[in-house]
Amino acid sequence: MNYKLVFRLMGRLLLMEAALMVPSLMVALIFRQGDALAFVYTILLTAACGALPGFLLKPSREDLTARDGMAVAGLSWVILSFFGALPFVISKAIPSMADAYFEAVSGFSTTGSTILREIESLPKGVLFWRSFTHWIGGMGVLIFTLAVLPRLSGRTSHLARAESPGPTFTKLLPKMGDTAKVLYGLYFALTAIETVCLLLAGMNLYDALIHAFGTAGTGGFSNYNASIAAFHSPLIEWIIAVFMMLFGVNFAIYYHLLRKDKESIVHNEELWTYLIIVAVATLGITVTILPQGMGFFPALRAAFFQVNAIASTTGFATADFNVWPLFARAILLLLLCLGACAGSTAGGFKLSRVILLAKSAYRDLRHTLQPRKVAVVRMEGKPVAEATLSQVGVYLFLWLILAVIGTLALTFETGDLVTAMTASLTCLSNVGPGLNGVGPTENFAFFSGPAKLFLSFLMLAGRLEIYPILLLFAPSVWKKN
Amino acid sequence: MNYKLVFRLMGRLLLMEAALMVPSLMVALIFRQGDALAFVYTILLTAACGALPGFLLKPSREDLTARDGMAVAGLSWVILSFFGALPFVISKAIPSMADAYFEAVSGFSTTGSTILREIESLPKGVLFWRSFTHWIGGMGVLIFTLAVLPRLSGRTSHLARAESPGPTFTKLLPKMGDTAKVLYGLYFALTAIETVCLLLAGMNLYDALIHAFGTAGTGGFSNYNASIAAFHSPLIEWIIAVFMMLFGVNFAIYYHLLRKDKESIVHNEELWTYLIIVAVATLGITVTILPQGMGFFPALRAAFFQVNAIASTTGFATADFNVWPLFARAILLLLLCLGACAGSTAGGFKLSRVILLAKSAYRDLRHTLQPRKVAVVRMEGKPVAEATLSQVGVYLFLWLILAVIGTLALTFETGDLVTAMTASLTCLSNVGPGLNGVGPTENFAFFSGPAKLFLSFLMLAGRLEIYPILLLFAPSVWKKN
Repeated sequence: MNYKLVFRLMGRLLLMEAALMVPSLMVALIFRQGDALAFVYTILLTAACGALPGFLLKPSREDLTARDGMAVAGLSWVILSFFGALPFVISKAIPSMADAYFEAVSGFSTTGSTILREIESLPKGVLFWRSFTHWIGGMGVLIFTLAVLPRLSGRTSHLARAESPGPTFTKLLPKMGDTAKVLYGLYFALTAIETVCLLLAGMNLYDALIHAFGTAGTGGFSNYNASIAAFHSPLIEWIIAVFMMLFGVNFAIYYHLLRKDKESIVHNEELWTYLIIVAVATLGITVTILPQGMGFFPALRAAFFQVNAIASTTGFATADFNVWPLFARAILLLLLCLGACAGSTAGGFKLSRVILLAKSAYRDLRHTLQPRKVAVVRMEGKPVAEATLSQVGVYLFLWLILAVIGTLALTFETGDLVTAMTASLTCLSNVGPGLNGVGPTENFAFFSGPAKLFLSFLMLAGRLEIYPILLLFAPSVWKKN
Repeated sequence: MNYKLVFRLMGRLLLMEAALMVPSLMVALIFRQGDALAFVYTILLTAACGALPGFLLKPSREDLTARDGMAVAGLSWVILSFFGALPFVISKAIPSMADAYFEAVSGFSTTGSTILREIESLPKGVLFWRSFTHWIGGMGVLIFTLAVLPRLSGRTSHLARAESPGPTFTKLLPKMGDTAKVLYGLYFALTAIETVCLLLAGMNLYDALIHAFGTAGTGGFSNYNASIAAFHSPLIEWIIAVFMMLFGVNFAIYYHLLRKDKESIVHNEELWTYLIIVAVATLGITVTILPQGMGFFPALRAAFFQVNAIASTTGFATADFNVWPLFARAILLLLLCLGACAGSTAGGFKLSRVILLAKSAYRDLRHTLQPRKVAVVRMEGKPVAEATLSQVGVYLFLWLILAVIGTLALTFETGDLVTAMTASLTCLSNVGPGLNGVGPTENFAFFSGPAKLFLSFLMLAGRLEIYPILLLFAPSVWKKN
């Protein structure tokens, strides 16, 4: 590792984080609930810890290797979460460091699982920061840095690749900094549109921002104990449901939309797979929960909301789906694992990987019948490299290994297999709620400190798609070069 | 499909099955419990249905294509199970055809899940046939045919490959017929040794044969309601546990052992992985169940027995592991999915596939750090083809798809996710028991007829490793050529 370069980069990221805390400080100052000082202390500490390596270190070599890019991606999320947890601890909103770290990781990784039993009594500045971490984490803090400081470092494509979900990374523009700017521009615009919609639907500005952050990052933290159900407003539910769906779409689609590039949208297989899955799952769940007697349209709304909340890996709730029939719960659990589109802010395994695996499977089945015929797997009309196909299989394997280890570890925390399994899956997929003991009306407070740290590891592994986090454990990454 | 050739082959397989029913007829004649006639009728019917296509059809081309090999493998198991179910129905031991078909498939596929609530009252000929199907299905009926009639057809390697578990098929000898003879010779010898051991431990000949068949095929049908617990004999439990472990080993190992080829055994990575997994799981479960107060050696015996019963995918039981702590149950569930070694009679995903995926993952992680370095995955010192690696990923995907579809389908049959999930997994892995509602003291009787047929499909898909069964649904397989 090029220590000087990596540490300088990390320092500048901390400075960026300190700056990103300023809006929360302002909210705290406006509402005067005693949490402003916590932000002042944290901002000063974070800025100081960032300024030292950020400006004093002079690396002899300026180009970032693949190894260093991975290290920066993995380390930065671990460290940003640590400093991000400080306002919770200092303000005494969440006194325990393990709890606060879990909450911060859950925020940045856009998971939205919480250890809080009571949310509404917390100071508004702290709650604003808690939801703002979703917005920062959704598109990615490294991509944000690339957008703001494009000339920070020589080869930066490693950074964007490490932080962006999906089997491949689509550069929209030749320069990485320009791509990052376009992505953040779209992200900002969509968030603003949702905020306005929520205002028009009757939310106050504070609630509208909180829930727009939670939707945009596909996070799911609400400032109400009852999540979206607290508003008792079908209109708000529809708005948030539609925006959750929109933030599960690859952002390249919106870029094509702005450029009126119809071809690229019509031929995007992942987009249509996503929309069909949402439609079929909504229909299936609506029919399944109808006998519970809530009437067709309320059932349709509840199903559409919950399908999008889980498929987009946001995790907001309008209903306690723990009491839905098993088929509905099983469908939600499947969506929870799949996630939405690559290149969106959503977590999960990603539909493009499922499509690649399905096409590989079809190819292999055909090959069994005609062993002499050589066939190429195509995606959006272009041939896919064999290496990419085998990497997707490997990713599936690593993903399952983490899910299994997570489940086994949590069997020491609960006597219920479904609780252990869905807690570990919902963290790995960055969704938020699971089933049974970690269902939508429950929380993660009952887990022990070590379990919370382990779940934080799963959330980061899920958000960064495993490799950058696993490689932090590889000694060769830490070897000086 | 070369219809004449495939149907002639199927006809001869039916003749073989009729012949394989003769021992059960003899048992029925000895014990005189009214089931002899059922065998006489079935044998006559099966032989007649087999003789017609088996001798009358004269195919113009004699060579078996890959496509025809797959069709024969898939079709033969579906049809042999149908005729294998007839003794159950005709003797009125299992009056419903759906139930009887489930039981026959569970036998041939060496799953050992049963729809019987009461086993001990059934006639002894029927119970003998029920367990004998395990022995036939364990090594495979096509391989048996190749061993007995090696010159049945020109290119027969497709047949053996379609029926033999594992990512690759190891030909022990240049001629397929000779390999089949060696495999069946070893299989017969090991079964005979176990029978003798059980006789020496105090079982009567009938019980010894039944349980040797169940162990050898890694099936798990017992003629006692309480399974192996009925004998109240630690010695019998140890003997069966050790033999379950032995039948989970690749049979090539025994061939190497006979030829004193130490090198091949010492360097067999799958063998050592298997033994280490069994040891670690036994130790882990022993420690976990110790607090339940049964004392160290009984706990060790129970853990060793159950670990081998599940890992080898046999499914015998000496304890109700439904009441064990969650960690122990989760370990068993993991072993249930993994299965044992390729080239054994065991089911499951197979350890060699797990090893190949783990090595691919390690390679990919290294590649992320050093993108310019090209590395080859090696198994037992030999390089593995990239195509094999990507096929293993695809196999994992298909396996998961079947498990998920199975779970979703069974949510209409039970309100418990663990029951639905483990019922579908235990059938796909050919184990037998699952957890909760399909635990070791429960049975599959409560499922509906369609659910039983669907589970039969999963059992066959698991036994034939998916491809031959899935391809039966491909129209191109049925096209005349």
